[in-house]
Amino acid sequence: MRLSQFHLHTSKEIPAEAELVSHKLMLKAGMIRKLASGLYTWTPLGLRVLRKVERIVREEMDAAGAIEMLMPTVQPRELWEESGRWEKFGGQLLKMQDRKEAWYCYGPTHEEVITDFARNELASYKQLPIVFYQVQAKFRDEIRPRFGVMRAREFLMKDAYSFHLDEADLDRQYGVMHDAYSRIFTRLGLRFRAVFADTGAIGGSASHEFHVLADSGEDAIAFSDGSGYAANVELAEAVAPHSRPAASEDMREVETPVQKTCEDVAALLGLELSRTVKSIALVGADGFVLALVRGDHTLNEIKLAKVEGLGEYRFATEAEILEHLGSRPGFLGPVRPAKTIRIIADRSVAAMADFVVGANRDGFHLAGVNWGRDLPEPVVVADIRNVSAGDPSPDGSGTLAIARGIEVGHIFQLGRQYAQALGCSVLDANGKAATPTMGCYGIGVSRIVAAAIEQNHDDNGIAWPEAMAPWQAVVCVINPKKDPGVAEAADALHRELNGRGVETAMDDRGLRPGAMFADMELIGIPHRIVVSERGVAAGTFEYRHRRAAEAENLDRATLLDRIGTPA
Amino acid sequence: MRLSQFHLHTSKEIPAEAELVSHKLMLKAGMIRKLASGLYTWTPLGLRVLRKVERIVREEMDAAGAIEMLMPTVQPRELWEESGRWEKFGGQLLKMQDRKEAWYCYGPTHEEVITDFARNELASYKQLPIVFYQVQAKFRDEIRPRFGVMRAREFLMKDAYSFHLDEADLDRQYGVMHDAYSRIFTRLGLRFRAVFADTGAIGGSASHEFHVLADSGEDAIAFSDGSGYAANVELAEAVAPHSRPAASEDMREVETPVQKTCEDVAALLGLELSRTVKSIALVGADGFVLALVRGDHTLNEIKLAKVEGLGEYRFATEAEILEHLGSRPGFLGPVRPAKTIRIIADRSVAAMADFVVGANRDGFHLAGVNWGRDLPEPVVVADIRNVSAGDPSPDGSGTLAIARGIEVGHIFQLGRQYAQALGCSVLDANGKAATPTMGCYGIGVSRIVAAAIEQNHDDNGIAWPEAMAPWQAVVCVINPKKDPGVAEAADALHRELNGRGVETAMDDRGLRPGAMFADMELIGIPHRIVVSERGVAAGTFEYRHRRAAEAENLDRATLLDRIGTPA
Repeated sequence: MRLSQFHLHTSKEIPAEAELVSHKLMLKAGMIRKLASGLYTWTPLGLRVLRKVERIVREEMDAAGAIEMLMPTVQPRELWEESGRWEKFGGQLLKMQDRKEAWYCYGPTHEEVITDFARNELASYKQLPIVFYQVQAKFRDEIRPRFGVMRAREFLMKDAYSFHLDEADLDRQYGVMHDAYSRIFTRLGLRFRAVFADTGAIGGSASHEFHVLADSGEDAIAFSDGSGYAANVELAEAVAPHSRPAASEDMREVETPVQKTCEDVAALLGLELSRTVKSIALVGADGFVLALVRGDHTLNEIKLAKVEGLGEYRFATEAEILEHLGSRPGFLGPVRPAKTIRIIADRSVAAMADFVVGANRDGFHLAGVNWGRDLPEPVVVADIRNVSAGDPSPDGSGTLAIARGIEVGHIFQLGRQYAQALGCSVLDANGKAATPTMGCYGIGVSRIVAAAIEQNHDDNGIAWPEAMAPWQAVVCVINPKKDPGVAEAADALHRELNGRGVETAMDDRGLRPGAMFADMELIGIPHRIVVSERGVAAGTFEYRHRRAAEAENLDRATLLDRIGTPA
Repeated sequence: MRLSQFHLHTSKEIPAEAELVSHKLMLKAGMIRKLASGLYTWTPLGLRVLRKVERIVREEMDAAGAIEMLMPTVQPRELWEESGRWEKFGGQLLKMQDRKEAWYCYGPTHEEVITDFARNELASYKQLPIVFYQVQAKFRDEIRPRFGVMRAREFLMKDAYSFHLDEADLDRQYGVMHDAYSRIFTRLGLRFRAVFADTGAIGGSASHEFHVLADSGEDAIAFSDGSGYAANVELAEAVAPHSRPAASEDMREVETPVQKTCEDVAALLGLELSRTVKSIALVGADGFVLALVRGDHTLNEIKLAKVEGLGEYRFATEAEILEHLGSRPGFLGPVRPAKTIRIIADRSVAAMADFVVGANRDGFHLAGVNWGRDLPEPVVVADIRNVSAGDPSPDGSGTLAIARGIEVGHIFQLGRQYAQALGCSVLDANGKAATPTMGCYGIGVSRIVAAAIEQNHDDNGIAWPEAMAPWQAVVCVINPKKDPGVAEAADALHRELNGRGVETAMDDRGLRPGAMFADMELIGIPHRIVVSERGVAAGTFEYRHRRAAEAENLDRATLLDRIGTPA
């Protein structure tokens, strides 16, 4: 591809609206243009990248036995009434009325449509298992669309849906899709983790999110350095410490006139933060409760909500705290409360000795506190904290690290809810009607492009993984008008690389070298080859990989060898 | 592709709602499923065909230098206000409000969005000419969606838009796109015509429609057997006859008591219908007018409306006819009217001698009528009739034939209206702002699939052109469980054909032969090969082309030769 025949439109300005680096770089590189809030046009450059993602997704879906189809973007209200989601889906559902005043929505997902399709197409267990997929536009009317295509309203998604007679077969397919997803992100050249996800709200039985790792990610992910274990930080289990050390200190009251936080108290006493305990006052279904987590840990409200006997809870008011503990916030603790209270101790707290808590007396804390001696052994011990880097992995292998991730895929065992709601059934081997159980499997195709940039960029622009680059290589032509040999050599190399299957562009736009190189770094082409008068004379090409610090002069054979053949 | 691993779901029933044969066959073959009025899901089988069309369209667009991009389906009202089409587009525009109550539409076309894109992306004449295209869903809220994907509301379109500094360059590009479209339909294997189209209403300067020829087509097309000339029947020029024969009869009154039509009068008199003249009474801007066309011709109201001096017209009432001609309808004529009237004679009528007209006296006609002798020479002579089969082609080469066509493409010189309305300009070579002139070029990708079926089917189903078939060939396996040699031979042939680039399916669904063959004929696979115990024993395969009357037994080499290599 000669870039003079292409539409490349880079920009030096950093658009004011863009916060995320991927959003900035996609605008600067001219990959997308904003049409309206959350609506983006993919320019020719951007579309090249999007199509590469699409192609790899399709190839792996096909290889996994999924069958491609295409459902409309516009969906009738009646189907969403059947599933009960017309109202329940909420404000993200873009609704519209046609000229006959019938209601439709722009599909934010296609469970309803595929289940309707299945109830008409599937009649016998012999047709199961079956997996359908499509690559189709979706619309979700986000309250605050932002971050460019990372959180656009209209976006491109691959969504797959599987139908099975029983859970065991769904489990098997789930594994197949898990593997396919792993291959997709591996082939795209992205660092990622498959993360255990919470299925509580939607009610399925198993779920993994696939996250591209990047510092700007919205989600914190805990993953093991010794196994494939990964989970959202909020869901990762904090493993109980093996045992509690013996008490070695006496309990003593220490004056902490203005020290209300664990950090301040630890600093005053010259102790590790991990020796202190935070007391969080709550009111649950049966009244006042004090939740305890280590000073260096953070409370996990999702886990707390699951503690048996707590019920629905809220944080206690100052009056309630005063009534039950006899002290104001900042000096609370489990020792000698004003009234008898219930305690929920985090597993780590239950394993502590000689710890520091508030004294339930304004301006004082207690140090050297020990369970069983200074206060009763905790009755309720539970995992109520977020994991921290360095925690042991819950699967017993390795230590947890914490990284940030961008969710780009989600696989989910849906179960029978949609099939039941829409009356989708097949005849089983005994001729009896059976409701199939379903899996659903999504990939945010357009979001992957942004996520890849978040993970792969530097000060000069994007540094694409080879599989996603708009071109693998670019031949930059310097002053071709001055020396016809330069144009000839560039032409020949351009042809040769493309002939070898290395997708190569030729920058023949006639820019000065600095501007040309800046553009090629910005748009992130992995291999840059410069053809100049000097190089032609010397029989060499100047080569630089996008991630390399320096350019090198290589002869033709070495150059071709260096660029290699694409996978 | 093993069909046991695919989702094929043919049906014997003819759906009641389907009128067109393509609609019936697409439903029977299981290519599409209706989701709601004008909304169709493309099944795996249908999508295979749709993708073939898409691929050929893309390849030819790329080859023509058009650059692919992707614009959102959802478009903001503000842009449509700028172009003036938010109201003007009418009821086909599906409008919707987002959660912030801002208005959007589902794009029925993308002139506004591409012109907005261009005004931001194009700054200099050096960037021109440029052609952008996309393959994207459109929505047109048809009053009466019907005929399946032939007239769906949500459909897939390839739309291209070009930008030029001047008309000459637009003309050049128009020619390039015309050629590309011709290559597309040729490669698809369809009989088609590029038809001159009327540009009046939209105001462009040149326009062609591409029609797939099929008896069920909505449009009648006149095309030359001696050149590439083709035009909508309503627009094709009826060429004037060379000269008028000399008068050879005297004018005489003939009694035609109940004969009110030219057909009846000609039959009574034993004359050719082409010897009679129809008189059509009109009231134009300046009063009563009699329009004359030959008895075997039909009036063309579009052409009539363009006759200078007529102005806006309507058909005359019986009272007006009686007042001006002195007779009731059925016996009207231009000779001896009750009052002085204006006459518009079709070119053919002006060249007639010895013709028959109404006598302006109830129950009588005049025969042997001649211009100049029996009535004054006509002052206004114009082309006001539809062309007929056998007319000379207006380009001077060959004779016109009439066929019906389905519009599947449209190319159009738009001019500057959108660029002007949206303020899109570039700097010209002199540094002055210049408004580019535009072309637009559409192809109804999903409609092509239906149109191809209208053109290529028989009583047993679809007979795909090779390029559009879901698979070029199918290997039908008969009783593989009975003889392992059959399964082996089928496997080997399936592999070999695919290896040779002949996209081949293997029907291993285990159906009985009759059902299997019926399915393969219904879905229209061009090459069918049957592998059976008897054939394996004899070392032959039973081969039948979809359009052949009989199957033949061929040895392997002959078979491979017959199927050939795909283009």
